[in-house]
Amino acid sequence: MSKILGFATFDVRFPTSRTNDGSDAMNRSPDYASAYVIVRTDAQDGLAGHGFVFTIGRGNEVQIAAIRALEPFLAGRDVDEVLGDLGGLSRELVGDSQLRWLGPERGVMHMAIGAVLNACWDMAARRAGKPLWRLLAELSPQEVVDLIDFRYLADVLTPADALALLERGSEGREQRAAALERDGYPAYTTAPGWLGYDDDRLEKLCAQAVHAGFELVKIKVGGRLEDDLRRCAIARQTIGDAIGLALDANQVWDVPTAISWIGALARFDPAWIEEPTSPDDILGTAAIRGAIQPVRVAVGEHVANRVIFKQLLQAQAIDIVQIDACRVAGVNENLANLLLAAKFGVPVCPHAGGVGLCELVQHLAMFDYVALSGTTQERRIEWIDHLHEHFVAPAVVLDGRYRAPLTAGASTEMHHESLAAFSYPGGAAWLSDRVLG
Amino acid sequence: MSKILGFATFDVRFPTSRTNDGSDAMNRSPDYASAYVIVRTDAQDGLAGHGFVFTIGRGNEVQIAAIRALEPFLAGRDVDEVLGDLGGLSRELVGDSQLRWLGPERGVMHMAIGAVLNACWDMAARRAGKPLWRLLAELSPQEVVDLIDFRYLADVLTPADALALLERGSEGREQRAAALERDGYPAYTTAPGWLGYDDDRLEKLCAQAVHAGFELVKIKVGGRLEDDLRRCAIARQTIGDAIGLALDANQVWDVPTAISWIGALARFDPAWIEEPTSPDDILGTAAIRGAIQPVRVAVGEHVANRVIFKQLLQAQAIDIVQIDACRVAGVNENLANLLLAAKFGVPVCPHAGGVGLCELVQHLAMFDYVALSGTTQERRIEWIDHLHEHFVAPAVVLDGRYRAPLTAGASTEMHHESLAAFSYPGGAAWLSDRVLG
Repeated sequence: MSKILGFATFDVRFPTSRTNDGSDAMNRSPDYASAYVIVRTDAQDGLAGHGFVFTIGRGNEVQIAAIRALEPFLAGRDVDEVLGDLGGLSRELVGDSQLRWLGPERGVMHMAIGAVLNACWDMAARRAGKPLWRLLAELSPQEVVDLIDFRYLADVLTPADALALLERGSEGREQRAAALERDGYPAYTTAPGWLGYDDDRLEKLCAQAVHAGFELVKIKVGGRLEDDLRRCAIARQTIGDAIGLALDANQVWDVPTAISWIGALARFDPAWIEEPTSPDDILGTAAIRGAIQPVRVAVGEHVANRVIFKQLLQAQAIDIVQIDACRVAGVNENLANLLLAAKFGVPVCPHAGGVGLCELVQHLAMFDYVALSGTTQERRIEWIDHLHEHFVAPAVVLDGRYRAPLTAGASTEMHHESLAAFSYPGGAAWLSDRVLG
Repeated sequence: MSKILGFATFDVRFPTSRTNDGSDAMNRSPDYASAYVIVRTDAQDGLAGHGFVFTIGRGNEVQIAAIRALEPFLAGRDVDEVLGDLGGLSRELVGDSQLRWLGPERGVMHMAIGAVLNACWDMAARRAGKPLWRLLAELSPQEVVDLIDFRYLADVLTPADALALLERGSEGREQRAAALERDGYPAYTTAPGWLGYDDDRLEKLCAQAVHAGFELVKIKVGGRLEDDLRRCAIARQTIGDAIGLALDANQVWDVPTAISWIGALARFDPAWIEEPTSPDDILGTAAIRGAIQPVRVAVGEHVANRVIFKQLLQAQAIDIVQIDACRVAGVNENLANLLLAAKFGVPVCPHAGGVGLCELVQHLAMFDYVALSGTTQERRIEWIDHLHEHFVAPAVVLDGRYRAPLTAGASTEMHHESLAAFSYPGGAAWLSDRVLG
């Protein structure tokens, strides 16, 4: 009978703004950061769970405070009881009436719940001796349904609908798990296209991306139209017509601006336009999509919860669902998001990058392939080869494909040395001034 | 040349859960709380601004942490410069790329920005020697337009649209300001209807409300249908057919449940049904409204930002806009919300109650009457006679109407004694165990 002792939290920040890594039209100067939590137990074998919220610098301490506010819900509880009903824990944390006022179901408090639930999922997978994707894929359809909070979904997705989708998805899952371990899962790369990179670097990185086996490259747009036209031309010329070129505006436009701007970029045959406007603007996104067809629309990394995803799909506002591992209430709510996408037959291309987002979200996409959608067609996980060295079991991309993780857990654990060196503001990386450039 | 010194923050909580005050179907046990901030200056006359976020207990410390994250944006700046361009400050805080990641524009971080902006508005009104409603109402239409962040509104409300609405609204504003000071502004009361109150108390408080001059009473619903039927019957019988009876479900239903439940309560001729489902569910709310007509739908106290309000109006999902003083990015974003309501010709009935919400939001409704919509028809501010004694210039309701505040400022200042006694967890109210019960 092991007990949860409590949380250890770490405000970890990387000074990425010094090199323009991660710069886009909305986020010109991010310091990639992690509000990192270890759920500690008194188990003899040292069992613990690791989770985090990805942020981009300032305010990471607010995210830490929100995670700490959840410790009283877990501390002292029996490990078996908690891990045996993670659906119940999800509903308890999301439904706490006092904390709910701080969202509801959006922003700092909701992401904190996600970090804690993800840490518990990491713990569950470690204890089961399986990578998270396999743990999830081996659950029965009913067990998956029990993990989900269906509140506010009844007009579109009932538990019975979900059960039917999962039963259909479970056919052939052993073969797909084997195929996944053999062939991996398709990736695309955003590494070339940060807005702060100059044209030479863009061209060089595009060429490298093709050489590395990627079939889709994404670049940032939305700063100045003349820059976008020049940069898109460089990218398209470098990668050729056979490679996909996705564009990402990171929410900088309003509806009329998005329509005219994308119209000007359509000549480069974009694979999609990502976040053309506010992630809360379902009707605006639908209007944009209607006006720019056949250019496809992808949204999701800042979608607050399943209720917004539900409507984006109802309104036919998006062609691609981009789940994010840390924005919503953890694995549980992302299962709902995957089911919503499956219900509407819309492909999921997860958002990743940042700190640890590739590591964590790969498990969800792989679960989707093995046990729900049953396909990788039109599906790719974002990949940026950055900061993975800080993780104990880093995500691996070879020949443009994520390798299936084989290590037990959710791939969320960071090296102790990294937690120490990049702790803000006391870590060596911040006290010196020499790191990363 | 006065400077802003920094913030003083206070985690203030009232143990209201001990008496079931504020209990509803979603929030069964709230401890009304305030994440309270004083923006301090070195001005000779002691000039300061007071603002807050209303929460319901747990997590108030997270809200405080978010407010503190904004201190570096204000500390050391010139008071004249800041107060002379509160539109610029609003855009700076809402647009900070690193903090924006924590929302964007929703939840804990967005509410913190609201508290700080509202504190600056309190300071501006104090310095001008005017109550906030008058300060706002005496601005020129162009000055009001300059205060607003129009990002994401262009498909519905442009600066030119706003200017035209404000110019129309400015005609006759001196007469309306005089009428307001003479007659006050209509109120409605929620005091009778908390879900934790028994039937006798409900009946007694309904009778008192009518006696006190209120023309509309609101009660909470959404727990058990049989209880709602009984309680609505008691309320309707007690107040008679001439008094409005509004119902508030506090987001507990999904779409099909809302439609059937409201159908069962329609016989009581509700003035409106409030928050039938998730405040993020624009399409769901529109579906509910379509199915329950002629019962009207009111939403807003948990609407995260102007983008959601814009869509609720575009989708014809709501009949009444319920702005909240603390949920969005302060006075500035609420000016946008008022303009959106005016554009669509939808009345605004502000959410209030809690701690200090009546005090603050009355200024916005009064500005709307004097300088924008020009009418109080179908408009009422919520009123609950609770916790006002902690405010230096408390809101006053007489004969069912808010009296126009005459004191300079935004009515946000709490007594020092209250800040001390209810500080959590060190204040006397929490260290003893005898307060409020």
